[in-house]
Amino acid sequence: MLLRQLFDKESSTYTYLIADEASGEAALIDPVDVHHDMYLRLLMELGLKLTVALDTHVHADHVTALGLLRESTGCATMVGFEGEVDCASEGLEDGKIINVGAVAINVIFTPGHTDDSFCFLVKDGDQNYLFTGDTLFIRGTGRTDFQNGDAGQLYDSLHQKVLTLPGNTLVYPGHDYKGWTVSTIGEELRANPRLEPETRDAFIELMDNLDLPDPKMMDVAVPANRECGLKK
Amino acid sequence: MLLRQLFDKESSTYTYLIADEASGEAALIDPVDVHHDMYLRLLMELGLKLTVALDTHVHADHVTALGLLRESTGCATMVGFEGEVDCASEGLEDGKIINVGAVAINVIFTPGHTDDSFCFLVKDGDQNYLFTGDTLFIRGTGRTDFQNGDAGQLYDSLHQKVLTLPGNTLVYPGHDYKGWTVSTIGEELRANPRLEPETRDAFIELMDNLDLPDPKMMDVAVPANRECGLKK
Repeated sequence: MLLRQLFDKESSTYTYLIADEASGEAALIDPVDVHHDMYLRLLMELGLKLTVALDTHVHADHVTALGLLRESTGCATMVGFEGEVDCASEGLEDGKIINVGAVAINVIFTPGHTDDSFCFLVKDGDQNYLFTGDTLFIRGTGRTDFQNGDAGQLYDSLHQKVLTLPGNTLVYPGHDYKGWTVSTIGEELRANPRLEPETRDAFIELMDNLDLPDPKMMDVAVPANRECGLKK
Repeated sequence: MLLRQLFDKESSTYTYLIADEASGEAALIDPVDVHHDMYLRLLMELGLKLTVALDTHVHADHVTALGLLRESTGCATMVGFEGEVDCASEGLEDGKIINVGAVAINVIFTPGHTDDSFCFLVKDGDQNYLFTGDTLFIRGTGRTDFQNGDAGQLYDSLHQKVLTLPGNTLVYPGHDYKGWTVSTIGEELRANPRLEPETRDAFIELMDNLDLPDPKMMDVAVPANRECGLKK
């Protein structure tokens, strides 16, 4: 499996290119609209064909490139539940498997940051790669105070579906704001302060008292992303 | 082997943490002074002991953390030739092997960007990891117009010592300005425009006509780095 991590400095978003080198099929996770041409260049340079572009959730801090990528490559686009985002070619659901050549992307429903948040798990030999979107960051988690976020749901998603994966599972987050690129489940269990509260109620209390400002692009990004980044 | 890539947004510098998990010994390549406390935190969280901090060259765009790290951890510090940077505990030379627990860092002398530039090669099983500093970037190279840079030397270093490594060797650069994190030797041979000139003279002509402004921190960073980042 080929993996490339790409960084958008403006929103501190990580985009991931995953490919099966044998078949040349590729997927992009959480692509950002302004980098559309760069993605096409990278795909061409690597001799890859984009078959699917997918978002971990409807983002509030950047505009997705899903629509642009579908127009330019004809790839499938997936975000949110079936029917939630009209412009997506397919919806996501827990247990769905997205095949990218011989690479299988396992979809895990992890509501909490938003009510349409998913993580994507890929296994390559003995190594697990988990793309966590805003469900789990390196030493943090996504916030739960807008877009139907729910701290209790996030606690359940983390403790029942994410942190139960093997400790050496590589964690590739949707954002990082301090320059870190990757972690593991074991490392987060040891050192992530958001995982310290010992009860669901204590976690909810922590999250309910963060008092964060709204993301600066929220009013633009959410409506735009419900159109796959293509404004009407 | 444990590998962590860390990004300094201000100078677009990549710092690398390499560790042998069995012994807990660790190395930092190209650490940046302002992140010293973050490195200590990461080392502690991962249960690692820093045994060596090393720079690929005397940097002109950021201040090294070598001096701070030696003061806080007692690690060895290595940059440039023996005797070039007084504050370093050891000099570098072609063929030197730096042992970090069971991980061997192979030092390759690659002058060109500066006259004291080195690449570091680590082998983990069948996989090569090459830390290229400013000798080779993803789709680029370092410049050669200051600090005794020499385009002809850079051409020789690239074509005789770097591009001759196996095509699947992972390339981890010292900087990236467009959000890319890793490449391979094979990918660079196919797609890096700086590797297109077919002769040494054509490469020298290309490099001599880049007409770049001086790095904004050059007048501060170079003298500071000759003191390992610790101003007298």
